[in-house]
Amino acid sequence: MSTVVTIGEMMMRFMPANNLRFEQAGSFDVYYGGDESIVAVSLARLGIETSYVTKLPKNVFGDIAVNQLRMHGVQTDFITRGGERMGLNFYENGASMRPSKVIYDRAHSAISEAVSTDFDFHRIFSGARWLHVSGITPALSDSMEEVTEDALKTAKAKGLTVSFDLNYRRKLWSQEKARKVITRLMKYVDVCIGNEEDMSITLGFSPAGTDVMKGHLDVEGYKKMFLRLKEQFGFTCIASTLRESRSASDNAWSVIIYDGRDFCVSRKYDIHLVDRGGGGAAFSAGLIYGILKKMSLRDTTEFAGAASALKQTILGDFNLVTREEIEGVLQGDTSGRVQR
Amino acid sequence: MSTVVTIGEMMMRFMPANNLRFEQAGSFDVYYGGDESIVAVSLARLGIETSYVTKLPKNVFGDIAVNQLRMHGVQTDFITRGGERMGLNFYENGASMRPSKVIYDRAHSAISEAVSTDFDFHRIFSGARWLHVSGITPALSDSMEEVTEDALKTAKAKGLTVSFDLNYRRKLWSQEKARKVITRLMKYVDVCIGNEEDMSITLGFSPAGTDVMKGHLDVEGYKKMFLRLKEQFGFTCIASTLRESRSASDNAWSVIIYDGRDFCVSRKYDIHLVDRGGGGAAFSAGLIYGILKKMSLRDTTEFAGAASALKQTILGDFNLVTREEIEGVLQGDTSGRVQR
Amino acid sequence: MSTVVTIGEMMMRFMPANNLRFEQAGSFDVYYGGDESIVAVSLARLGIETSYVTKLPKNVFGDIAVNQLRMHGVQTDFITRGGERMGLNFYENGASMRPSKVIYDRAHSAISEAVSTDFDFHRIFSGARWLHVSGITPALSDSMEEVTEDALKTAKAKGLTVSFDLNYRRKLWSQEKARKVITRLMKYVDVCIGNEEDMSITLGFSPAGTDVMKGHLDVEGYKKMFLRLKEQFGFTCIASTLRESRSASDNAWSVIIYDGRDFCVSRKYDIHLVDRGGGGAAFSAGLIYGILKKMSLRDTTEFAGAASALKQTILGDFNLVTREEIEGVLQGDTSGRVQR
Amino acid sequence: MSTVVTIGEMMMRFMPANNLRFEQAGSFDVYYGGDESIVAVSLARLGIETSYVTKLPKNVFGDIAVNQLRMHGVQTDFITRGGERMGLNFYENGASMRPSKVIYDRAHSAISEAVSTDFDFHRIFSGARWLHVSGITPALSDSMEEVTEDALKTAKAKGLTVSFDLNYRRKLWSQEKARKVITRLMKYVDVCIGNEEDMSITLGFSPAGTDVMKGHLDVEGYKKMFLRLKEQFGFTCIASTLRESRSASDNAWSVIIYDGRDFCVSRKYDIHLVDRGGGGAAFSAGLIYGILKKMSLRDTTEFAGAASALKQTILGDFNLVTREEIEGVLQGDTSGRVQR
Amino acid sequence: MSTVVTIGEMMMRFMPANNLRFEQAGSFDVYYGGDESIVAVSLARLGIETSYVTKLPKNVFGDIAVNQLRMHGVQTDFITRGGERMGLNFYENGASMRPSKVIYDRAHSAISEAVSTDFDFHRIFSGARWLHVSGITPALSDSMEEVTEDALKTAKAKGLTVSFDLNYRRKLWSQEKARKVITRLMKYVDVCIGNEEDMSITLGFSPAGTDVMKGHLDVEGYKKMFLRLKEQFGFTCIASTLRESRSASDNAWSVIIYDGRDFCVSRKYDIHLVDRGGGGAAFSAGLIYGILKKMSLRDTTEFAGAASALKQTILGDFNLVTREEIEGVLQGDTSGRVQR
Amino acid sequence: MSTVVTIGEMMMRFMPANNLRFEQAGSFDVYYGGDESIVAVSLARLGIETSYVTKLPKNVFGDIAVNQLRMHGVQTDFITRGGERMGLNFYENGASMRPSKVIYDRAHSAISEAVSTDFDFHRIFSGARWLHVSGITPALSDSMEEVTEDALKTAKAKGLTVSFDLNYRRKLWSQEKARKVITRLMKYVDVCIGNEEDMSITLGFSPAGTDVMKGHLDVEGYKKMFLRLKEQFGFTCIASTLRESRSASDNAWSVIIYDGRDFCVSRKYDIHLVDRGGGGAAFSAGLIYGILKKMSLRDTTEFAGAASALKQTILGDFNLVTREEIEGVLQGDTSGRVQR
Repeated sequence: MSTVVTIGEMMMRFMPANNLRFEQAGSFDVYYGGDESIVAVSLARLGIETSYVTKLPKNVFGDIAVNQLRMHGVQTDFITRGGERMGLNFYENGASMRPSKVIYDRAHSAISEAVSTDFDFHRIFSGARWLHVSGITPALSDSMEEVTEDALKTAKAKGLTVSFDLNYRRKLWSQEKARKVITRLMKYVDVCIGNEEDMSITLGFSPAGTDVMKGHLDVEGYKKMFLRLKEQFGFTCIASTLRESRSASDNAWSVIIYDGRDFCVSRKYDIHLVDRGGGGAAFSAGLIYGILKKMSLRDTTEFAGAASALKQTILGDFNLVTREEIEGVLQGDTSGRVQR
Repeated sequence: MSTVVTIGEMMMRFMPANNLRFEQAGSFDVYYGGDESIVAVSLARLGIETSYVTKLPKNVFGDIAVNQLRMHGVQTDFITRGGERMGLNFYENGASMRPSKVIYDRAHSAISEAVSTDFDFHRIFSGARWLHVSGITPALSDSMEEVTEDALKTAKAKGLTVSFDLNYRRKLWSQEKARKVITRLMKYVDVCIGNEEDMSITLGFSPAGTDVMKGHLDVEGYKKMFLRLKEQFGFTCIASTLRESRSASDNAWSVIIYDGRDFCVSRKYDIHLVDRGGGGAAFSAGLIYGILKKMSLRDTTEFAGAASALKQTILGDFNLVTREEIEGVLQGDTSGRVQR
Repeated sequence: MSTVVTIGEMMMRFMPANNLRFEQAGSFDVYYGGDESIVAVSLARLGIETSYVTKLPKNVFGDIAVNQLRMHGVQTDFITRGGERMGLNFYENGASMRPSKVIYDRAHSAISEAVSTDFDFHRIFSGARWLHVSGITPALSDSMEEVTEDALKTAKAKGLTVSFDLNYRRKLWSQEKARKVITRLMKYVDVCIGNEEDMSITLGFSPAGTDVMKGHLDVEGYKKMFLRLKEQFGFTCIASTLRESRSASDNAWSVIIYDGRDFCVSRKYDIHLVDRGGGGAAFSAGLIYGILKKMSLRDTTEFAGAASALKQTILGDFNLVTREEIEGVLQGDTSGRVQR
Repeated sequence: MSTVVTIGEMMMRFMPANNLRFEQAGSFDVYYGGDESIVAVSLARLGIETSYVTKLPKNVFGDIAVNQLRMHGVQTDFITRGGERMGLNFYENGASMRPSKVIYDRAHSAISEAVSTDFDFHRIFSGARWLHVSGITPALSDSMEEVTEDALKTAKAKGLTVSFDLNYRRKLWSQEKARKVITRLMKYVDVCIGNEEDMSITLGFSPAGTDVMKGHLDVEGYKKMFLRLKEQFGFTCIASTLRESRSASDNAWSVIIYDGRDFCVSRKYDIHLVDRGGGGAAFSAGLIYGILKKMSLRDTTEFAGAASALKQTILGDFNLVTREEIEGVLQGDTSGRVQR
Repeated sequence: MSTVVTIGEMMMRFMPANNLRFEQAGSFDVYYGGDESIVAVSLARLGIETSYVTKLPKNVFGDIAVNQLRMHGVQTDFITRGGERMGLNFYENGASMRPSKVIYDRAHSAISEAVSTDFDFHRIFSGARWLHVSGITPALSDSMEEVTEDALKTAKAKGLTVSFDLNYRRKLWSQEKARKVITRLMKYVDVCIGNEEDMSITLGFSPAGTDVMKGHLDVEGYKKMFLRLKEQFGFTCIASTLRESRSASDNAWSVIIYDGRDFCVSRKYDIHLVDRGGGGAAFSAGLIYGILKKMSLRDTTEFAGAASALKQTILGDFNLVTREEIEGVLQGDTSGRVQR
Repeated sequence: MSTVVTIGEMMMRFMPANNLRFEQAGSFDVYYGGDESIVAVSLARLGIETSYVTKLPKNVFGDIAVNQLRMHGVQTDFITRGGERMGLNFYENGASMRPSKVIYDRAHSAISEAVSTDFDFHRIFSGARWLHVSGITPALSDSMEEVTEDALKTAKAKGLTVSFDLNYRRKLWSQEKARKVITRLMKYVDVCIGNEEDMSITLGFSPAGTDVMKGHLDVEGYKKMFLRLKEQFGFTCIASTLRESRSASDNAWSVIIYDGRDFCVSRKYDIHLVDRGGGGAAFSAGLIYGILKKMSLRDTTEFAGAASALKQTILGDFNLVTREEIEGVLQGDTSGRVQR
């Protein structure tokens, strides 16, 4: 009986230690993650009953993935077991002008070959209030496109709030197909999340005045875009992360949320990146948490901004923080002074 | 026959490798340290005969602690062995807005349960010129409060210069008790060292215009506070570190010394922190060294400033530098160019 | 049948992991490198047939050195085996104001004791178009001074383009001897490479307005110096790296090339240093590549600048990048955004 | 609603990597464990609903301990939070004639200072069929002696089967006190588990013909002892591990169970030890599993023997095997051939 | 222009450090290998010109695989680039009665999806004397079955000696299909290599008196089987490894070769296993080397036996020994005394 | 004022982690050692005032070497600083039939270039009772041959007992030179230590019936040899280690001492080797300790046997045990049972 349900692919991430390049790495650190599982772990750690739905192979790595979720308190009852393999990715941390690199090896994964009969969404959503899914899930395969639509439709029918993180992955599908599918799915969506690039590719809306490659961000452009998105799709809430990529080592980070009435931009964080992966999903989790807890727009925005900034100081996909730690940052202590 | 004697608790510090959080750490790097032992190691490495006084358990970790001190040339003849356990702490390195964390596990340590009969201060101070102790030592327990006063009184009686680093630790005692005890001990003290927070809590004096949480430092406020402290307690020397905590990754650092006549502020260092622990103790050691070597106030201040800045580029508690390296920085080479 | 030949010493570099100081290091990471081998590896990785000439001991470390070169596609047919030992160095990474340190242990290495009969340069240069050597090679020993001159003379006679990276190493020879020998060798040289310090010590020319210790660089001073160098030695090309050492952690970096007609200064990179070693050699390789590929002066300069900046984000001596990665930076993406 | 409940202390175990001695260890691998938690993890992994009861401090290490249990599927609802600290131990792996060493630092742990009101055993045992506890639990403190008796008494009253692993720890209490307390508690016990040393010290019965120090084991002596134990205490089942300590590197291992009618000795395993810790607890879990699953005495004995032998090939306290793996060994494949 | 050509799949092997189980591994050591690549590396290191033929993806891992081969001197000119992914496997080292485990993730690898037009065997075999392939290669896919037959047929037509290591992999194909295909391919084969299990499954011949599960080996049974195999298939040479799996930690090892006239069994080695993987391929390489070098049957057998025993004392797939080291063992020094 | 003085070379030992071969090692663990320094550390740890005499370079590695000695309580006052470099060696741990390998890189070390005026033996031996040196020390160079003879002669003149461990190193000198020099030095020696190989090469005496390569040891042959050695050189004590090299992984070990009247052979230990280096020096230390403490021949022999066996279960050169641990083994507990 979970409050929130998320559906997606869980992957093993292999990462060379320290700043080593792939070709230097005699060993790889391994982390488990994947967009929706990050959201699930964040919410479970914050005390929200959350269930993660996926399909994992019947081998030790599938077992470990389940155990990783259970460790953080995520409910795993609706994870189907079977299929061929885990999705993998290889992640090389960049530095300064050398970008981080991700090499995906996720084709033929168990979840990508899952079909609608693998999941009984009526049962899964029983008692739930919220469904979250990202644009990666329908991109995994044609059958997963169908599974995703099935999930969204059922959720909608059962009265759940539906949030969708656009998250375009060019290795999974073409821009054309992504736009066609995502646009079609938007009719089920209440809360739409995405960065500039995602919104431009999957929905065809871009914020004027922003040039991601150059690190320029114009908040006014976002606001105008949000208004048009609301008009077009009727979202009750639209949100975006505002990353300024100064280098692979240092980013600035803030977030913006529009609740249909007001816009709110969080404080901006200068982050000396430990691991930027998972920042977006940590933001989604913070946003969902704020809304579920009926926080004000201002509080939700700052909470989600602080949570997602903190994520980027932590290795691996999961946002291994406590609510107390997020609140510490919220209360204005970003001095990094030692806490004894 | 040591020139300087320091008294305190030595702890094992367990630290996750790299930037890992406690819950990610499959292993912990271990460092030995503790405020007064850092001072002792610094001075011994600079060529000052220094004896460290403590109580350590009769087990292999007590042995290792002694060996660590001997390795750096510290005299260990007056270390008492016995008691229950080593004090421990767990140290998680922060990053950006995520603060570093210290979890202490030091209750019931051998030294915290030591009593006055464990130490024969007349013998220990025989031939010594200087005693250094921090506010942590009397905070360890009621019996250690007594031991500390015994040490200070005896040192004073035998004509040693006494330096005291206020170092308030909130996990060890209340602000009320700290202020009462520390204030009482000040009558034995010649050289008083402490940062803004310590001076405010333990002595009740704050530098106007400084807000540590916001990273504002007003040197003029420090000077005024020092004048009042001198008036109140009659110190011959008052000194403070001036840390500007910009984030857990980057700090600015300088130091100020007042010798009863003049104030001197060192150059300011921008430090990309490797390990900020031990900066204060490294400063105390530099200050004591400068005075013992009859350096000018300017030279003492710059020496202690450079030494303590260098500490923060080194992992672990001890300031593993040579005098030549400190002097290299003093002579103005902070360009970090490779030395071949 | 190689296009480029480089001649020099290959060393094992022992480096404490992370930011550890030598005295903290329970283990040392080992990297193979040395100025001319870095050039050779860079060129081979860029697809230029390159042969590296040296002498290595007949033991497993000599074998490993050869294998390291073969791994990157460098031709090793003219490496002579014999002699006493590998040259070694110990490299401690600095941080902030604490400089990196290199302790050399290269005396009596196989190559330093090599003699002219160890190498048949007529055969070695057969079919080659370019010889590159650094000022380290003649500095290794009197016999290697002779070998170097033999190589340069033969190359010149056979019509190869000769590039020379001045690279002064004070532990190997005096400034007086360096200037005498290097100046003498310049008559064989077409392309002269060196930083401010090298040019000043080995050729006696300094760029006005530049103070390396203070991090001041005046490009105009370099240009004037280049004009005088061309006048004096008749070089067809003169080039220099422009490092601004802000600290051991952060440098700015650009490069300048003068092709006898025009000067070109590359864009400037802010580098959060991972390993600054090998930056100069990576620049030489980029310069040679640009000329061999008949790039424009502008393209050559930016290519060599980007390549050598990237090197400093990579651990070890070798510049483990691909041409595509260099071109990615050239095309202006220094935002470090993740490449998926 | 758990089938099995176990009660005890969970500790962090710090272990130098590889074969390093404590004084060589720059870092310690950390494992979570403790006798009853090992039993709980084993049973949960075998599919038995199991609840672990303890008290853990309200800090990150307490959180991690809970997460470690959840990861393996153990129910943690009845874990009380509070108190001062985690119990710790330091474990040095021996080799050949150099014995492994354990240094405990568990005094003042949260569970050792727990009191009866921390646990509501009526609620805890609701729906349960089995309680397992070891002799370590009542040894932790006087209050825990009381808690243990309270638990045993309540369990007995509610009709649970009670198993007790005698497990004498000389650092926790004297032989006299242990015998007095343990003997008193035996009236609540159905299944008594212990090795020769435990039975001798805590119950006063020794198997004739066995000399542990010399590695002699006489199974007949065990049988006679078991008969006398049954007579004295009325146990329905008595069991012992039969370890032959040939060296710190190699042991032989078998187990014996007496079900009140028959004796059964398992096959004997030659084990090249990876980590002998937790072997006894893994045996207890196997025994409980066999009885709960109504296996025959022979099958129970072989299952528990194989499970506990496998544990000793695995680092850390927990027996990280699957039922399928135990069954693989049971079916006679101890050849260690690769399973592809 | 290589003397020997081998064709097969190269994989990345991920292995938890030390004796950790998969679920304990926070990082994986990575090794490159695969049956025929091991043979190629062994032969290249022994000085035989050897070319390895495969298909690798156009990504950094494909590049690294090529570099790994080049490092050891293997010729890589006929490696085709393209396709989807590298084959992977996960390898967990066993201990005592706990078997090692391999989890394959090789479906859809570049080589498994290669087709005949990817390789021009006329050109590849030009100047070659020997082709070696294992039963894994035709098992990869239907198209690779075709490629393998194409290679064997062409090699045979061009007069190369063909060796075939039966190597059955149950995860790749059924016993029925394996027997059908392998039996058909035997008409091209001169030298047939395989262990008891392979010969039984793929050719239908078993050595009487041998029970691998129990570690019984009867050499006479092998001889009789070899005679029948020769009769059936007309092999000029038949060879087998004789592994006695005592446990996952300790094996005995010898080899047997039949040259059509005589049988020769090597000395038997007791091996404390470091990594048993690659033992069979190291044997094949030794056998091919002996024949190419026209060693006597006795010398070939002992050479191949020693080489393959040594492999099992080395981590990873490749047999990183020198000819001198093999000869050291051959000359009877298996005392393991330090060589200074 | 030391009781024992030892003189020799201290080296850094670089060792690949785990079982890796040199060519696989991305990093090397570093240990400090060298024959006489091992003896000094052992004796200092046993409570004997011991001074180690050598020459070390004036760099950080020389400093670390001194610190390593101080850590264990060795007196370092007579260590001269200067010269070119530290001696190094590279140590690869073998396994089964693959032998361990040592590659020395010690030529031109500071101590090898030391001269008699570097050491004032009259002052060094003041108050001492014992001098220990090995055959490595005079082998380092002609000047060190002179220094060694100077030391022995002075020690003898001042009435010290002189022990000499023959320790032949073939990389340092020829058998001819070794025999000539060592034989000449024997006139100063009271206690002669060496294994079969050393005695045969340096003194020309072999124990009948022993074949080291085959692992045969005949104690009677040793006894007869000792009698002849005593006759020839007049030693008061002759001792030998009796290593049976079964493989690089497993050895048997015992020791024999002849005190001029009786022979005593220790119990024999089966050792699963962790690191066999330093076994001989640990034996010498045990022997010296026994004599200094006036133990009986039996007790001395067993003490030295147990101490040197324990050494081989410990990584690195130094015998990091306590007297209590040696006595634990002496009292017959070699079962390796956990000590809690």
